[in-house]
Amino acid sequence: MYFASDNAGPAHPEVLAAIAAANQGYAMPYGADDIMDEVRTRIREIFEAPEAAVYLVATGTAANALALATMCAPYETVFCSPTAHIHEDECNAPEFYSAGAKLTLVGTQDQMTPEALRTAIEGEETRGVHGPQRGPVSITQVTERGAVYTVAEIKALADVAKSFGLGVHLDGARFANAQAALGCTAAEMTWKAGVDAVSFGGTKNGCMGVEAVIFFDPAKAWEFELRRKRGAHLFSKHRYLSAQMQAYLADDLWLRAARQANANCARLVDGLNTVAGAVITSRTDANMIFAELPRAAHQRLAAAGARYYVLAGDVETGDADALLPCRLVCDWSITPELIDQFIAAAKG
Amino acid sequence: MYFASDNAGPAHPEVLAAIAAANQGYAMPYGADDIMDEVRTRIREIFEAPEAAVYLVATGTAANALALATMCAPYETVFCSPTAHIHEDECNAPEFYSAGAKLTLVGTQDQMTPEALRTAIEGEETRGVHGPQRGPVSITQVTERGAVYTVAEIKALADVAKSFGLGVHLDGARFANAQAALGCTAAEMTWKAGVDAVSFGGTKNGCMGVEAVIFFDPAKAWEFELRRKRGAHLFSKHRYLSAQMQAYLADDLWLRAARQANANCARLVDGLNTVAGAVITSRTDANMIFAELPRAAHQRLAAAGARYYVLAGDVETGDADALLPCRLVCDWSITPELIDQFIAAAKG
Amino acid sequence: MYFASDNAGPAHPEVLAAIAAANQGYAMPYGADDIMDEVRTRIREIFEAPEAAVYLVATGTAANALALATMCAPYETVFCSPTAHIHEDECNAPEFYSAGAKLTLVGTQDQMTPEALRTAIEGEETRGVHGPQRGPVSITQVTERGAVYTVAEIKALADVAKSFGLGVHLDGARFANAQAALGCTAAEMTWKAGVDAVSFGGTKNGCMGVEAVIFFDPAKAWEFELRRKRGAHLFSKHRYLSAQMQAYLADDLWLRAARQANANCARLVDGLNTVAGAVITSRTDANMIFAELPRAAHQRLAAAGARYYVLAGDVETGDADALLPCRLVCDWSITPELIDQFIAAAKG
Amino acid sequence: MYFASDNAGPAHPEVLAAIAAANQGYAMPYGADDIMDEVRTRIREIFEAPEAAVYLVATGTAANALALATMCAPYETVFCSPTAHIHEDECNAPEFYSAGAKLTLVGTQDQMTPEALRTAIEGEETRGVHGPQRGPVSITQVTERGAVYTVAEIKALADVAKSFGLGVHLDGARFANAQAALGCTAAEMTWKAGVDAVSFGGTKNGCMGVEAVIFFDPAKAWEFELRRKRGAHLFSKHRYLSAQMQAYLADDLWLRAARQANANCARLVDGLNTVAGAVITSRTDANMIFAELPRAAHQRLAAAGARYYVLAGDVETGDADALLPCRLVCDWSITPELIDQFIAAAKG
Repeated sequence: MYFASDNAGPAHPEVLAAIAAANQGYAMPYGADDIMDEVRTRIREIFEAPEAAVYLVATGTAANALALATMCAPYETVFCSPTAHIHEDECNAPEFYSAGAKLTLVGTQDQMTPEALRTAIEGEETRGVHGPQRGPVSITQVTERGAVYTVAEIKALADVAKSFGLGVHLDGARFANAQAALGCTAAEMTWKAGVDAVSFGGTKNGCMGVEAVIFFDPAKAWEFELRRKRGAHLFSKHRYLSAQMQAYLADDLWLRAARQANANCARLVDGLNTVAGAVITSRTDANMIFAELPRAAHQRLAAAGARYYVLAGDVETGDADALLPCRLVCDWSITPELIDQFIAAAKG
Repeated sequence: MYFASDNAGPAHPEVLAAIAAANQGYAMPYGADDIMDEVRTRIREIFEAPEAAVYLVATGTAANALALATMCAPYETVFCSPTAHIHEDECNAPEFYSAGAKLTLVGTQDQMTPEALRTAIEGEETRGVHGPQRGPVSITQVTERGAVYTVAEIKALADVAKSFGLGVHLDGARFANAQAALGCTAAEMTWKAGVDAVSFGGTKNGCMGVEAVIFFDPAKAWEFELRRKRGAHLFSKHRYLSAQMQAYLADDLWLRAARQANANCARLVDGLNTVAGAVITSRTDANMIFAELPRAAHQRLAAAGARYYVLAGDVETGDADALLPCRLVCDWSITPELIDQFIAAAKG
Repeated sequence: MYFASDNAGPAHPEVLAAIAAANQGYAMPYGADDIMDEVRTRIREIFEAPEAAVYLVATGTAANALALATMCAPYETVFCSPTAHIHEDECNAPEFYSAGAKLTLVGTQDQMTPEALRTAIEGEETRGVHGPQRGPVSITQVTERGAVYTVAEIKALADVAKSFGLGVHLDGARFANAQAALGCTAAEMTWKAGVDAVSFGGTKNGCMGVEAVIFFDPAKAWEFELRRKRGAHLFSKHRYLSAQMQAYLADDLWLRAARQANANCARLVDGLNTVAGAVITSRTDANMIFAELPRAAHQRLAAAGARYYVLAGDVETGDADALLPCRLVCDWSITPELIDQFIAAAKG
Repeated sequence: MYFASDNAGPAHPEVLAAIAAANQGYAMPYGADDIMDEVRTRIREIFEAPEAAVYLVATGTAANALALATMCAPYETVFCSPTAHIHEDECNAPEFYSAGAKLTLVGTQDQMTPEALRTAIEGEETRGVHGPQRGPVSITQVTERGAVYTVAEIKALADVAKSFGLGVHLDGARFANAQAALGCTAAEMTWKAGVDAVSFGGTKNGCMGVEAVIFFDPAKAWEFELRRKRGAHLFSKHRYLSAQMQAYLADDLWLRAARQANANCARLVDGLNTVAGAVITSRTDANMIFAELPRAAHQRLAAAGARYYVLAGDVETGDADALLPCRLVCDWSITPELIDQFIAAAKG
């Protein structure tokens, strides 16, 4: 019963099968493999973007940091949520890759609002050469607290960015979960809403380690390639990245896996609502839940072998009814049976 | 009547005289000049720090960015006020010099409190390798909104930093104004209170362009020298930096000039309190005032040739009684007569 | 018949099998997986270095750039061969990761000599703060021109480095091929000879994409971890890196595969020596050959579908007897039959 | 008798007088001072470049590093002489400011030749994304070994650069000495010959510390301003930089001072040619001499108080006739009498 993250489950069998299938004979290295051609074509189709530049890297942080460095000068600032992965969980990778750009935190909530974004943008670049210049806006979709921006919300944020001439990046580490939740197309959630570049995640949703970076305007494609190589993120045996993404896109595995994860999450929400004292404290639009459970429930779950992050407090000692916050994440590989076991354990 | 900043007045005649005096014959370049030896000795005396490493640079941003880069690894974060010069007015110089460190803003006020600092520090480095690591604390003294931390307040902040094993930097672009306001010694305001490194400003207080960087522990002296050279801040004809600082320290010019600037500011505060409708909106501990004046007063001042920053609103058009915020800064060169003229103009 | 590089052949079946075996259930992310514990233990055994810090990354450039950045301050210079991969083939990754360190090229030959290294080191840091400071020495083993340093040669280079107090890095992208060629132990080729840190390559020798970085002194282990994360090279689903390395080390696959590649290369050398006009122009100590073949031979090989780099000249047009230089690389997957076909095609 | 460098003599009295004259009343900070307007206009006139972007910084390294960083992406390489100041004497400042670009050394001589430059350029960017991309060419005029490129030679180098689409930077730390030696115009030595950006030195030729950076195409002017601020090289009390440059340009002080320095050098060359055993070992086109003098002559000079760099060997002990190499630099402030004293001392 592992609900700690969507980075600890196994890779989907179709992904492994594609790697095995790719492991035949010789293949051109460094992204010139035939499978990459196929992947590029398929992503352009999915995104309805025949000119898009498409690249693969192995980690989400690489996708974000390289995309942002390509979009952002070192004397600029990136606008993002205070809970954004690029701010909280990348150990200064965006600052590193951009050669010292800044991150300006927008508002104080998980989801940025157009008003807060406008205020943040207007607050910068009022001091001429003295302050940082305005750089791109980065939207995290799914957010780090489990919320999904609607297409209209993304468009509203992008409209603010565009009104200042700024680029828009979408950190889609959980892109598929968001799209599955919204029931929209990939194009609607991105360029049709004003997004310029996307980190399109595969790792958290059934792959071993692969993320696509997509620029809808290919003008900076070559610069990105150089930055990727300089960042040591260009794989020589690139076919193994390509094969993962090939399987991920084939027969909509990405959406199938995301729907399953989202459904897992919904079942878990339903179950938690039947646990005495449990409170859901966040939006649960996709595959992530923030909740508070009584200490006794945590103790029973720990005894049953459940694994997840308890975010504050001591599970072992204290008032049995005291609520302790936790995070629960479902990936594609969770089964309904596991969820039912989890809920049963929580109830005791 | 120029009250826009303390960076637009003339240099003190004693500083110019020292430069002229230094302009004789040959002098060793790159900091090996005899005057620098004298400056180093004098600063060590003033700070009661016989082992301190002492360097000169020409800008306050260079002093701050180089000092912080020497104290901070690129995967760390610097704790500072949201109004700190290093955050707002250095166009990402700290991020640049540190190779991509982050700045964590402490609280939402001009002055950091020990509680807010502790909360900010505890908020970082809770994610192991994923988030930035805790780096030094930077205190701006005088703050960018005109406040002076007491020695006890500095000590309280430094105590928090030390309890986490973090270094403490003091951005003393207006060091002399702060010390003059507090009536303490330089040692009391720095190392005796727990400060490890100081940017000791001269430029805003009567020099042409010189700041000292002082490390009380000389362990990183050589690294600083290399970073200064690599940053292109090592002057070949260094004697002209030395001479400025020599004059600045001689006969306590630094304190004389600061006392004069602070007294100017106090006189201006007194005067503003007699202007109908005027409101002082900040602390005025040193030589800087944030105030709101009726539009009509701004119009009269503009007509009289007064120069200062109006921070919001249109001076020329609108309700005559409406209050518009402004910043007024006094440097050493302002005369009582000028202040009286200013107040007279404001009153009309 | 693909002899262009050792980065285009398939991964070894044992590596794929290990990945499939690892793909069961949940595993701790970010390097905390059990297989990594096993890998760490095994590498420490192989290198007879029970205290060594061991990390995995996915590309050779990441291994080199991160290791060097951990060993080298930004105001220092790395000493390396003018043909070193870190100089020629990493698109400034070492300069990037080190925040602007320099590379000083040692001599003009593929292999550094102790004399040339001493001269290069003595040539730097003669200008105090003005020039770059002396940083680590990086040895490429196998070299980019196919030569293998003997243990004594490595020790002689390391002795020079140590006499100046400098660290020693070994770029072992083809570590196994070198060790197989020398018949020594891993310890003899590294720390017993004075090497401080190793990039231990797996990718070119049968893995999909994995390299170990080994520091024999673990003092900088945590700094390396932070730099790896900041560089976006920490894998969330780390088990798939671990599994590759696990298989690579099991039953000496690394040495088996390397011996096979080296034997392939020797067979190819023997064959080339029977091709009229062909000249071997480099050392062929491991699995790489630089040679000159008559244009007609190149034409016959192209017609037969052989793939390799022709380094200068136009294969299609010109004097049939003219010699054109080329590079031929054998990986583990080449068969004796393929080599015989290649030689037969070259002869026509 | 100080012949060690042109960075140790006094500033010209006209420069000091201009600073004193500028020290009246209030002046707009950060480059918005009226004197800067005058300087910009005057430099545009001198260079016959009415659109040029003109900036001042305080050190030659800042001028070079900032200009090159504006011209060069971090994944590119700068082509320069192996003796270039940017390579040998800036402690990796170009690598730092460019965020990790490389320097490719052209040939093995002090002066680059078009052939060597072409070879160097052709040698890069032959590996696609793997090697650094071709960046700007930097020409040092006067070279670090005392030679002056003719206008035709500069044009020939720039023609090679242009044929590859590369920018051309001229490090003119001794621009005036070069122009005085050539008897050409500033335009002829720069944009008319194909130069895009110039570091126009004042510090070594009578100023305290000021260099102009000139971009003939102002397209990157704003980027340069941001880089200058971010590098901490924007002076708040900018008028003191402006005043130095104002004096330097007024009544052709720059050329007067340079002619005097060059004449000093010629007189010293003539004198050395009369010292028994002395050999001039470099070109002496401007104000710098590399020579070998008998040890006994060095000893007599040392006894007489002469100061200059002896580049190898022990002056005090050894064969009296043995030749020891040295560098002698004349600045504007050297007098014919001093030179005659020097020669007399050398002869004994």
